[in-house]
Amino acid sequence: MGSSKTLRKIEVVSPVPADIDIANSVQPLHISEIAEELNLKSEHYDLYGKYKAKVLLSVLDELEGSSDGYYVVVGGITPTPLGEGKSTTTVGLCQALGAFLEKKVVTCLRQPSQGPTFGIKGGAAGGGYSQVIPMDEFNLHLTGDIHAITAANNLLAAAIDTRIFHEASQSDKALFNRLCPPNKDGKRSFADVMLRRLKKLGIEKTNPDDLTPEEVKKFARLDIDPDSITWRRVMDVNDRFLRKITVGQGPEEKGMVRETGFDISVASEIMAVLALTTSLADMRERLGRMVIGNSKSGEPITADDLGIGGALTVLMKDAINPTLMQTLEGTPVLVHAGPFANIAHGNSSVVADKIALKLVGSGGFVVTEAGFGADIGTEKFMNIKCRHSGLMPQCAIIVATIRALKMHGGGPDVVAGKPLDHAYLTENVALVVAGCVNLVRHIANTKQYGVNVVVAVNKFATDSDAELNAVRNAALAAGAFEAVVCTHHAHGGKGAVDLGIAVQKACESQTESLKFLYPLDVSIKDKIAAIAKSYGASGVEYSEQAEKQIEMYSRQGFNNLPICMAKTQYSFSHVPSQKGAPSGFILPIRDVRASIGAGFIYPLVGTMSTMPGLPTRPCFFDIDIDLATGKVLGLS
Amino acid sequence: MGSSKTLRKIEVVSPVPADIDIANSVQPLHISEIAEELNLKSEHYDLYGKYKAKVLLSVLDELEGSSDGYYVVVGGITPTPLGEGKSTTTVGLCQALGAFLEKKVVTCLRQPSQGPTFGIKGGAAGGGYSQVIPMDEFNLHLTGDIHAITAANNLLAAAIDTRIFHEASQSDKALFNRLCPPNKDGKRSFADVMLRRLKKLGIEKTNPDDLTPEEVKKFARLDIDPDSITWRRVMDVNDRFLRKITVGQGPEEKGMVRETGFDISVASEIMAVLALTTSLADMRERLGRMVIGNSKSGEPITADDLGIGGALTVLMKDAINPTLMQTLEGTPVLVHAGPFANIAHGNSSVVADKIALKLVGSGGFVVTEAGFGADIGTEKFMNIKCRHSGLMPQCAIIVATIRALKMHGGGPDVVAGKPLDHAYLTENVALVVAGCVNLVRHIANTKQYGVNVVVAVNKFATDSDAELNAVRNAALAAGAFEAVVCTHHAHGGKGAVDLGIAVQKACESQTESLKFLYPLDVSIKDKIAAIAKSYGASGVEYSEQAEKQIEMYSRQGFNNLPICMAKTQYSFSHVPSQKGAPSGFILPIRDVRASIGAGFIYPLVGTMSTMPGLPTRPCFFDIDIDLATGKVLGLS
Repeated sequence: MGSSKTLRKIEVVSPVPADIDIANSVQPLHISEIAEELNLKSEHYDLYGKYKAKVLLSVLDELEGSSDGYYVVVGGITPTPLGEGKSTTTVGLCQALGAFLEKKVVTCLRQPSQGPTFGIKGGAAGGGYSQVIPMDEFNLHLTGDIHAITAANNLLAAAIDTRIFHEASQSDKALFNRLCPPNKDGKRSFADVMLRRLKKLGIEKTNPDDLTPEEVKKFARLDIDPDSITWRRVMDVNDRFLRKITVGQGPEEKGMVRETGFDISVASEIMAVLALTTSLADMRERLGRMVIGNSKSGEPITADDLGIGGALTVLMKDAINPTLMQTLEGTPVLVHAGPFANIAHGNSSVVADKIALKLVGSGGFVVTEAGFGADIGTEKFMNIKCRHSGLMPQCAIIVATIRALKMHGGGPDVVAGKPLDHAYLTENVALVVAGCVNLVRHIANTKQYGVNVVVAVNKFATDSDAELNAVRNAALAAGAFEAVVCTHHAHGGKGAVDLGIAVQKACESQTESLKFLYPLDVSIKDKIAAIAKSYGASGVEYSEQAEKQIEMYSRQGFNNLPICMAKTQYSFSHVPSQKGAPSGFILPIRDVRASIGAGFIYPLVGTMSTMPGLPTRPCFFDIDIDLATGKVLGLS
Repeated sequence: MGSSKTLRKIEVVSPVPADIDIANSVQPLHISEIAEELNLKSEHYDLYGKYKAKVLLSVLDELEGSSDGYYVVVGGITPTPLGEGKSTTTVGLCQALGAFLEKKVVTCLRQPSQGPTFGIKGGAAGGGYSQVIPMDEFNLHLTGDIHAITAANNLLAAAIDTRIFHEASQSDKALFNRLCPPNKDGKRSFADVMLRRLKKLGIEKTNPDDLTPEEVKKFARLDIDPDSITWRRVMDVNDRFLRKITVGQGPEEKGMVRETGFDISVASEIMAVLALTTSLADMRERLGRMVIGNSKSGEPITADDLGIGGALTVLMKDAINPTLMQTLEGTPVLVHAGPFANIAHGNSSVVADKIALKLVGSGGFVVTEAGFGADIGTEKFMNIKCRHSGLMPQCAIIVATIRALKMHGGGPDVVAGKPLDHAYLTENVALVVAGCVNLVRHIANTKQYGVNVVVAVNKFATDSDAELNAVRNAALAAGAFEAVVCTHHAHGGKGAVDLGIAVQKACESQTESLKFLYPLDVSIKDKIAAIAKSYGASGVEYSEQAEKQIEMYSRQGFNNLPICMAKTQYSFSHVPSQKGAPSGFILPIRDVRASIGAGFIYPLVGTMSTMPGLPTRPCFFDIDIDLATGKVLGLS
């Protein structure tokens, strides 16, 4: 047990109780105690109730000169319906480092989407004896960041349709007079945000009265092409009936109907901006340069062209501050941002990681999770997130389970609600060995970035020693720095002490600098090819639409951005059923889109759902409140 | 100056600076200081940053035996485009009572809708030297209550469409098997919320296996009539293109398209529930019994029929706690709930008022504002809010201005952006006297409830003594307890000291009990007639649709609810241009709807817009963030 006063010993019970029962069995500390243990001064955080606090970015200024801790990223093998326990491992490792190995440690996690909490999936706070608490606060509302994203995203959406509407009925002059109305002294002026548009248009005038009629037209008429609009509305609810809708059918909208749709809020580009931004000033710039579509002449139209970048920043000014929470064993957690891992980069925020690295300081550890398998999550962590942030991890973990490896080795399909095939419940070393091809490729790919790779085998009760040894041998043969069996689900931090020791050694012995998979200054297609090769593809084929989009983004000057592949997480390839380590396939690119504010191009490899639905019996049937205690019931 | 340590003296400047400049010139106290001054123990509030705290309902249990303070409601004459300064008067009066008359006082205000902040209107935090601070936190996000309403409202909306979708493709048996799936031991059970539906259906069984096929059908098939659905989606954004939309156009929704629309979030019935609820248990019941439409056989379908009442309560569990803020002079403010004042009752929350009355205790004052003119706001305050809460005010204030009374007396139209007619800027006693008919009717109507009426004339620099005296004389002649001229906009609390003294006397001398305008146990039409009479109408006429709805609600057993008229605020009558005190008109009821969870029937007198739009130049053009200080710019 560590010497810190906030750490607490948990009594583990076997068999492991339900997650919610474990979470409710521990009384969380007041979050100010966790903050104090991190040496956070009270002016550097704001309380949000008793168990959450927002850590203010101002702490970065104060700690500017101090050293960073070790930076550890947690990826996984290719996911299966059996689950690999990546979040649980991330939390368990931190409980081990903090509560048993006496290290300063911060866990950096993504904020989960609230909508799915009421649909099928349970929460995302870890599991067993490795969890973030309080679980209900983690899964619902948190400190309002996703609500702020929803508000900002939809204000921009409303501004787009309304601008088209008003432009349709007004002359250039009338439009200009409304945009720059004279004040009571008869003088006009440009709002600050309008100067950005003038600059973009190459008009170097600051007095509205000096504009020529041609300049008035260029300035005032955005002339948005409705068919080019890529900006959709969002909602943090699983509402499948909003996937495709027609808007503008009210009589006052004068027949200006348009087909569009809603995504779930975490799919908003603003979420990706939040995850990648480095400061308030940087966020202001990114939000302003988000592209919502093109003008009829093919020029990209930005949020700042609509005059709204500042207002979006105001809506997001508190959301930029990460939320401090705690694990079951009292170690600190920063929860911040949760972008999609296909159409976006699927990693928690840069600012949370930066703050955490300063707070733990030299010799401390920051453990951050990358969404999906390492082919997607770790790849984007390195090539997008670390490239933006300038940070480099010393160690990358790859989480695997015996069950999932068996599936990659050719084990039978798993169907939700049906009993597990005995292949997954009894020893079958051959199946495990066959499945290690998946793990081995992830190890090889990850090692290429110049980091030490540690494999964490998340042990189930049915796993045999022979199976576990087979994985360990395969991992070491593939160049892993170490491969460790962990039991943090059943035992909390104590079950991940060996992993913690391995991670520490890996960090201390890391010497290389970060090697990216591709440079930014090659063509979009060359960058896509480099990533496709890491998947095992022998080539890439582009649809006509994809070719058109690549040509457009290149012409618009966006060809120097990194690439964010929107591919299924269930296979290295584009075919979810291809387990193991497929190779020699041609990767098809259906379409190519861009998040200019976030700063990446995202090719679509297949169709990505960005709005989940509700099943016949959603889990909201079980969710209620205990009126006597105020505790949330039925959340899982 | 009062003796409390949290009160602060403000230095007033003339002419009065912009609201935002005054707000920014005062450094707010840490909200824990305001809480301590109210004798709130730390376990009874949760901090949300430095200047906001949620006061927990648990404080009501602790203070159960203690006395209530005086209860004062602020209404106004019929609103005009000139503005009457009702919020400003509410805040100014409290600054006077707290900072100059040494009374314990709490201001209870509605939370403003965030959407309009980015459109045309400025904030709703008062004005001049009578404001709630920090202004940006008051107007944006606050503590997330409206975001919680949006999430809950839309989860219910998604559940409706999804349930229809799943019922369309499944047999009774398949539906039942999905709703009550066997667990791993092969046993089925009903979720708690399902037992509510069974009870409603008169099925007294608790074991799913015991249901007959007929009972299975009744239980599992809600058979919602899509054309009867009154539940709409909401968003806290001025998005006119969502007023009328078609949903379900995605290929996976199999052609189950439906016309519906979005309202702004504060128009959600859940907002009205929040404003009227008295406890967590009461909120659970109200949310569960909200009616979303009918079955094809005409039975009302509730949120609990959909299995979602508990989940909605969980989403709203923090929103039920009012938010503590402060005025410029350091007096406490509770901000909570902001329902529409036409389709809902337009008053802040019952729980905030109840908490405030206990916190100020005997001899203290709680001042709460009622939306729109007294014909709507005060009427609904008495007949809906006080009837639900069991509270009674001792004093009702009616705010008037010379300018607005001139308009009611026949003064020329006022057009935004155009200079004011000289009639409003120079003395014209005759116009003022003529306009007092409006004030006089509001006084007479308000006195009928058994409260003492105090008229507050919110003075402008251009008002003459003769004009002010004319109003005072008319008010006293109409039976007002007192009529007082105030200058709190220019002078803060000091400018409302006379008003404070008058209010204190009015409260101390009040002796009658609350007399409602109508009893609940008469017919819906009799209740509507009673309210119409208070407007000056000589009769009521009903559309065919209104007749049909009244018949339906009566048949469904909802005839004992109070009535919430959805009428224009700009006239006693249904015609906005009829100023003064129109009479002898026939009030037309276009349609009749119901908010069963909130607990009222709302007849529509004309068409109410429930989703505002954005102008050509929304005020978001001016809103930005000062990157050096983090302060919000351009909010007004």
